Amino acid sequence: MTTPRSRTEIPTPALVLDRAALDRNIERMASFFRDGTCRLRPHFKAHKTPDIARRQLAAGSCIGLTCATVTEAEVVAAFCDDVLLANEVVTADKCARLAAIAQRTRLTVAVDSPEGVDAIAAAARAAGLSIGVLIDLDVGQRRCGVTPGDAAVAMAQRVAATPGVSLRGVMGYEGHVQPVRDRAARTAQAVEAMGQLVATAAAVRRAGLSCEVVSGGGTGTYDISGRIPGVTEIQAGSYALMDTDYAELGLPFEHAFVVLGTVVSRPTADRCVVDCGHKSQTKDHGLPGVWDLPGARVTGLNDEHATLSLPPGAAVAIGTRIALVPSHTDPTVNLHDVFYVVEGEAVVACWPIAARGYAEQRAALGAGL
Amino acid sequence: MTTPRSRTEIPTPALVLDRAALDRNIERMASFFRDGTCRLRPHFKAHKTPDIARRQLAAGSCIGLTCATVTEAEVVAAFCDDVLLANEVVTADKCARLAAIAQRTRLTVAVDSPEGVDAIAAAARAAGLSIGVLIDLDVGQRRCGVTPGDAAVAMAQRVAATPGVSLRGVMGYEGHVQPVRDRAARTAQAVEAMGQLVATAAAVRRAGLSCEVVSGGGTGTYDISGRIPGVTEIQAGSYALMDTDYAELGLPFEHAFVVLGTVVSRPTADRCVVDCGHKSQTKDHGLPGVWDLPGARVTGLNDEHATLSLPPGAAVAIGTRIALVPSHTDPTVNLHDVFYVVEGEAVVACWPIAARGYAEQRAALGAGL
Repeated sequence: MTTPRSRTEIPTPALVLDRAALDRNIERMASFFRDGTCRLRPHFKAHKTPDIARRQLAAGSCIGLTCATVTEAEVVAAFCDDVLLANEVVTADKCARLAAIAQRTRLTVAVDSPEGVDAIAAAARAAGLSIGVLIDLDVGQRRCGVTPGDAAVAMAQRVAATPGVSLRGVMGYEGHVQPVRDRAARTAQAVEAMGQLVATAAAVRRAGLSCEVVSGGGTGTYDISGRIPGVTEIQAGSYALMDTDYAELGLPFEHAFVVLGTVVSRPTADRCVVDCGHKSQTKDHGLPGVWDLPGARVTGLNDEHATLSLPPGAAVAIGTRIALVPSHTDPTVNLHDVFYVVEGEAVVACWPIAARGYAEQRAALGAGL
Repeated sequence: MTTPRSRTEIPTPALVLDRAALDRNIERMASFFRDGTCRLRPHFKAHKTPDIARRQLAAGSCIGLTCATVTEAEVVAAFCDDVLLANEVVTADKCARLAAIAQRTRLTVAVDSPEGVDAIAAAARAAGLSIGVLIDLDVGQRRCGVTPGDAAVAMAQRVAATPGVSLRGVMGYEGHVQPVRDRAARTAQAVEAMGQLVATAAAVRRAGLSCEVVSGGGTGTYDISGRIPGVTEIQAGSYALMDTDYAELGLPFEHAFVVLGTVVSRPTADRCVVDCGHKSQTKDHGLPGVWDLPGARVTGLNDEHATLSLPPGAAVAIGTRIALVPSHTDPTVNLHDVFYVVEGEAVVACWPIAARGYAEQRAALGAGL
């Protein structure tokens, strides 16, 4: 296995990243946040790739990075001085890892239960430090989170009274609003969700507590939630790479990556089979799009095969490279170990997807149990 | 991060494998094939785990293993002396890897195009050897494969006339039949598909060519296709671990693995959120089942969260372990690096999922491009 120097040498299936398109996406998002008081905290979970995150931080407008897992936060702590783990962590093993991260960087973690607060506080005290927390609010997604208002204030008071944790603010991810296609409806729903978040922040302050951080937003709402007074940071992630699902929203971001495949079977005039199946890209947001073959569409995605319907006369032979556009960035990236980074036809770098999977599983392998 | 010694110490999300249940599944399948002329060729793609494959081979009735990717075949070649790559391989880089595998073990590869035959033959000749091939037939799945009958015989003749490849037989995977719920309908469709396969094998022999291997079948049809005269081997894989999709068929195999998660949020009386989301198990065959909590069901599966609806009074607290049963084994296993193997409450081993992902991507990382 030799190292690919050009796009035609990349072994398939593979994630191929257009560095120029990536940089344009990063710059467009950074520029939006240059003229306001709200800052950007790019979500690392979308790409899990330090080389991409470093470019996001270098472009400016960023207050730090957002993570979804302890593994991600461990990777990010090596190069980022302000890390938000926007997710609940409740077990002793993972809270101990949080404390280790907090010794290296400024760490803030979401909480929505007394048990979570106590678990983080205990690990922090054992390590002789304090970990910052945000009260996670359910602003309509109906997943995790405390009910906005009195319950959230009570949780904030509990945090303030617990040694080992420091109250930094509130968080509310309007995940249910991100995919709303109609711009006016999306705006109305985001305003409602962020209204609950900002109002709860005010209630926390009225209770005499600190609430410097008011965190929310995503790629679908960055320019709505990011302009609501009182919101201090936006957790968008998908904008850097984009997928077909977010492309439906008409956002000013380009597809910066594709899954590259090779035609391995050409059974009929109107069908070909490509070697980039469901183990190389997910279909939880629908079948992938076809990048560069007008009239073709994906009709099936099995473990190792994407089946395409072809237009009459399509010049598709065995060995032809076909690029597909994933419907959902985050879980697709998680299936690969590297991005092959291209400029035009040249492969200019190979970026490790360093936070793929679970560090503790790799550690268990290393321990040789 | 310490090595878990008991189930309660396993960091979540994680694949937890019940070794006794696995061994029962393996023995049940092996015993079915002990009293016939058809043999079993377990499909490695379902688990990608050498420790499981070795147990399958040790149980007997196996003629070798089946793989879906070159990476899998490379891993398997280290311990198996008869490997079928039941998939089309057409590029020079991967054909060179096939030739390297063929220097270590008996390798057979599926072909369905002249280009594929020529690519494999060229790599084999360059390595000074011959690679065995099966003509891949489309027996109704409408994915890869030559049309049964004359077209397949013509392809077999082409193989026979090409130095570097050796015709070993025919293959036809009745993938479209595997999920058919009704046993009578499944039987009728499998008989029809295997009928095309066996008839084509006979036509190949009538043309004066060798056709020792007639390969097909899967977990849903092993006891139908495996009893059709002329079928020489069955490529079943999912039976070893099982998932909720195959469980619908009423097969004599148990769920041998779960995705273990931890309750990280308990926002309402009827809802909890568990840390084993879509990055730890796929939903292409539906939402996962709940293993051990009567009345509970999964209502949503986001990247890092499984949301469960709970029955009244459920004893589910923050930190409670919840086991989910994946709807689709193969792509779920591919998301993890290890199986935590348990006997009762004890973790007795940690088995590497050695063929997860793509070896060429890990090689590119190692090359430091």
